[in-house]
Amino acid sequence: MTGDRRYAVIGAGAVGGLYGARLHAAGLDVHFLLRSDYEHVRRHGLVVESPDGDLRLEHVNAYNDAREMPTPDVVIVALKATEREARDRIIEDLLGGRTEDGPGARRPQCVVLLQNGLSAEAEVAEMLARIGRPDAEVIGGLAFLCSQKAGPGHVRHLDYGPITLAAHRDDGEPAGVTAAMRSLGGDCARAGIVASLEDDLVQARWRKLCWNVPYNGLSVLLGATSAELTANPDSRSLVEALMREVAAGAAAFGRRLGDEFIPQLIAATERMTPYLPSMRLDFDAGRPMEVEAIYGEPLRAAADRGVALPRIETLYRQLSALDARAH
Amino acid sequence: MTGDRRYAVIGAGAVGGLYGARLHAAGLDVHFLLRSDYEHVRRHGLVVESPDGDLRLEHVNAYNDAREMPTPDVVIVALKATEREARDRIIEDLLGGRTEDGPGARRPQCVVLLQNGLSAEAEVAEMLARIGRPDAEVIGGLAFLCSQKAGPGHVRHLDYGPITLAAHRDDGEPAGVTAAMRSLGGDCARAGIVASLEDDLVQARWRKLCWNVPYNGLSVLLGATSAELTANPDSRSLVEALMREVAAGAAAFGRRLGDEFIPQLIAATERMTPYLPSMRLDFDAGRPMEVEAIYGEPLRAAADRGVALPRIETLYRQLSALDARAH
Repeated sequence: MTGDRRYAVIGAGAVGGLYGARLHAAGLDVHFLLRSDYEHVRRHGLVVESPDGDLRLEHVNAYNDAREMPTPDVVIVALKATEREARDRIIEDLLGGRTEDGPGARRPQCVVLLQNGLSAEAEVAEMLARIGRPDAEVIGGLAFLCSQKAGPGHVRHLDYGPITLAAHRDDGEPAGVTAAMRSLGGDCARAGIVASLEDDLVQARWRKLCWNVPYNGLSVLLGATSAELTANPDSRSLVEALMREVAAGAAAFGRRLGDEFIPQLIAATERMTPYLPSMRLDFDAGRPMEVEAIYGEPLRAAADRGVALPRIETLYRQLSALDARAH
Repeated sequence: MTGDRRYAVIGAGAVGGLYGARLHAAGLDVHFLLRSDYEHVRRHGLVVESPDGDLRLEHVNAYNDAREMPTPDVVIVALKATEREARDRIIEDLLGGRTEDGPGARRPQCVVLLQNGLSAEAEVAEMLARIGRPDAEVIGGLAFLCSQKAGPGHVRHLDYGPITLAAHRDDGEPAGVTAAMRSLGGDCARAGIVASLEDDLVQARWRKLCWNVPYNGLSVLLGATSAELTANPDSRSLVEALMREVAAGAAAFGRRLGDEFIPQLIAATERMTPYLPSMRLDFDAGRPMEVEAIYGEPLRAAADRGVALPRIETLYRQLSALDARAH
């Protein structure tokens, strides 16, 4: 049934634009929901520059209203984590109360959240239950890539690119590899996207935070690239201390990142192209930063289990204050 | 004997210039050691603008070499805390091995460290013992003021101005109010300087850090004034958490700051003229920041007693990284 799966990609920025274009180029039935780029993409399509090969898609299915999109099998949410309200409204428009192919006829549907954070899957699952769609599966998508938006409908992919997929379970236990994940994995393979299917979303989310927590915030506060932060002994020491706090947060949820995880992550960062993380790009452009997704959510989750993360809290307060002044 | 006491004021910036000029204007025998401002001050004297009354001193005793200064009764060190080597060399030039009025004839001498930090008095006392002057008393001077250098030989005093004096003891116990402190207090009163004589230097230093730790570093990292940091709920919450860590550091030395101290300090800051702390001015001007004095020293002191201060450590690492990049 792979060829028949219909994708709704919400947001065509550095992440959604890249993966959506790849799925489209592989012949899948992809529909993009856009805002500011809508007119441009409708007329000129999408351009992706990538070390894995450039893509110039002259015609893509572009929409500026979710209610006009055909009912998808898979919703890929690639909005900034700051856009919760838009996220929920769009998912509801796409999956809630559609009558054209009533519940009986509907194939299994899933929502993939290709976003930063820790809590979005639980929030969306709760929202889906509220709108009468508890059957729709929620899958966390974690993108490990260096990619930037270069202009309207134009994505510049710099480095890396694998994604990790893992399914949400309301009780927070490992969900295993689901049928929906396997279908997605097949489509990714067809599109040249390296996707790893993991059985434990909570573990995957904390592992990703292990990079995001130190590098995103410090790149803003210290005005430095990932390479500079890793090279200076003081900021590197702080990066490591922040990573250990993330590991302590994971441990509060019974997840162990492993002794080798932190040194390997730092070594991988040293091999990376010097990079300004997305939070720094957001800050420089005057956009809201993903402070809640990357700092507030893990802090509160750990605090709920009695674990204090004081260094992460320090960055959380610093970045929240900066964010408030900018908006 | 008050009228006879001779002062050597080391540094005529925002702090040394202000207090030295006041002592001079009161008729005391004051000698200034200067570097970059030497030529200007020798020719044009010192100007202090102050809400307490401006001072224009056309002729002051200016030197650019400590070895040419007459032997003082009181050395007031008003250098940046970053200048340890200069501090020690100058004190040695002024108090060590002078023969013109050999030890027998010498009156009691003291060194007042009008500087930020926690450890400078112990360092100087150790150095004095090493150069055969363990008799010279070391007094900590804590200035609570908003003052800036406006130009060569030109100080702009904005707000506040009291100083606290407390004597160092090698064992870290309260030294009580010494005879030298009382003489200094008398000279300050004569010069219109509000000086409070305290019996416990360690307590006084930790109390001062309670303001310096949050406001100096955050003013650099968040590009904000003391008023902005206090007004934003996130930075205010971090200010309070940092102050509680300073209190925990003080507690490791058996000093209690008192339940009302932190709220009163924040309330006093709210009443202050919006102010860029000295670390921010140093950072903006590309000068070294007092990162060790304000962060490194209390961190290490607390760690020596088994107390971790993770939020202060976070700022320490952040500021050290910024400082390294700038120099």
